[in-house]
Amino acid sequence: MKIRIGHGYDVHQLAPGYALSLGGIQIPHHVGSVGHSDADVLLHAICDALLGALSLGDIGKHFKNTDPQWKGIDSKVLLKKVCEMIHQKGYLVGNIDSTLILEEPKIGKYVEQMKEAIAACLDIEASDVSIKATTAETMGFVGNKEGLEAHAVCLLFPKE
Amino acid sequence: MKIRIGHGYDVHQLAPGYALSLGGIQIPHHVGSVGHSDADVLLHAICDALLGALSLGDIGKHFKNTDPQWKGIDSKVLLKKVCEMIHQKGYLVGNIDSTLILEEPKIGKYVEQMKEAIAACLDIEASDVSIKATTAETMGFVGNKEGLEAHAVCLLFPKE
Amino acid sequence: MKIRIGHGYDVHQLAPGYALSLGGIQIPHHVGSVGHSDADVLLHAICDALLGALSLGDIGKHFKNTDPQWKGIDSKVLLKKVCEMIHQKGYLVGNIDSTLILEEPKIGKYVEQMKEAIAACLDIEASDVSIKATTAETMGFVGNKEGLEAHAVCLLFPKE
Ligand SMILES: [Zn+2]
Ligand SMILES: [Zn+2]
Ligand SMILES: [Zn+2]
Repeated sequence: MKIRIGHGYDVHQLAPGYALSLGGIQIPHHVGSVGHSDADVLLHAICDALLGALSLGDIGKHFKNTDPQWKGIDSKVLLKKVCEMIHQKGYLVGNIDSTLILEEPKIGKYVEQMKEAIAACLDIEASDVSIKATTAETMGFVGNKEGLEAHAVCLLFPKE
Repeated sequence: MKIRIGHGYDVHQLAPGYALSLGGIQIPHHVGSVGHSDADVLLHAICDALLGALSLGDIGKHFKNTDPQWKGIDSKVLLKKVCEMIHQKGYLVGNIDSTLILEEPKIGKYVEQMKEAIAACLDIEASDVSIKATTAETMGFVGNKEGLEAHAVCLLFPKE
Repeated sequence: MKIRIGHGYDVHQLAPGYALSLGGIQIPHHVGSVGHSDADVLLHAICDALLGALSLGDIGKHFKNTDPQWKGIDSKVLLKKVCEMIHQKGYLVGNIDSTLILEEPKIGKYVEQMKEAIAACLDIEASDVSIKATTAETMGFVGNKEGLEAHAVCLLFPKE
């Protein structure tokens, strides 16, 4: 067993009448992200990075978006399930780095709370979770506020 | 010598009259990807991640898209050549994680075959190759089916 | 302390009347990148990858784009400051791999000079810095030359 790398990417539309779940918390905003679950683009990218590192498939394979049991579900539940799979395979999460690409709102003041929420799901320190953010400088579907994206990378270490 | 990280990204247009080569196999679809080689967006992203990890330049440097010898070539040939370069430099591929971003078709049923094809080129286990997929939720040039993208990351380990 | 991973992404608009700073050098071109600093999309992505690997926040947190001291600044200054933070935390940069996504100009002939510039800021070898480039195949805001993007990944190692 060796150190393993994972990468995840996710994207969701933004629309009125939906909550904006990001990094495991709800952020007050006039639009929210559209999806079958709570559409948390950051948690989904992190789930995919963790699954990908062990070649376990993607979030769509484990939590089908046609399955009523995942309708509107808090993505922290999915992240905890992914974490259990990682542990069962004999690995521990090293660190996670992620980037949110969204035009608004500014998320700086929520980052610490998001890190705590993610770290709690994964049983790691908040200092092993990183969340960065950038706009798309008004360009493309992120720039015109149609949607938002997230990238995440992770390292997994074999348990001693 | 130390563990090294690589990241690759590729993008191709989709158009009628082309084959859809993805992850080293051909997938039946009414449009295919446009390019000088077989335009396999996933293998190209993986080649770039492997080359990048050793700072060997990019796929465009080694396999120029104006060179007739690469016209229409199966990208598995390119991936094998990249693998030889890695080995010659004294490194082995750890694991690869990748994400396809495409609106259609669904590629779930082809993933195992792609993993086998890629692992064979790199002389690693299929369990050390990960392929995930997501749509762009109908947004942007992936969402309107003009094109498709792939991201890949890898770790390389020095041979003992 | 353990090996850590980082990922950075940045995007800038292109417009006449601006310099094109990329990878720490200036490239002659009829448009340049728009931003508060010198808008070097590659150095910004690398700064974010390094900061992210240690969960130190993002470039916007450390170098606010409303702060007059960073107006028009050479991003190599920012990269050096980030490197100091990494070292102070007890880590060394392993390798960096990056991908520029831009429609023009071709940057192949500038890559070695960029690698030298980046390596000098980080006190590492040029062979531990990788810069790759691809176009967006005329699609999206990169393809229509409105803007350019960069991705970067890195590994950090604890000092012995
Ligand atoms: Zn999602
Ligand atoms: Zn390609
Ligand atoms: Zn920037």
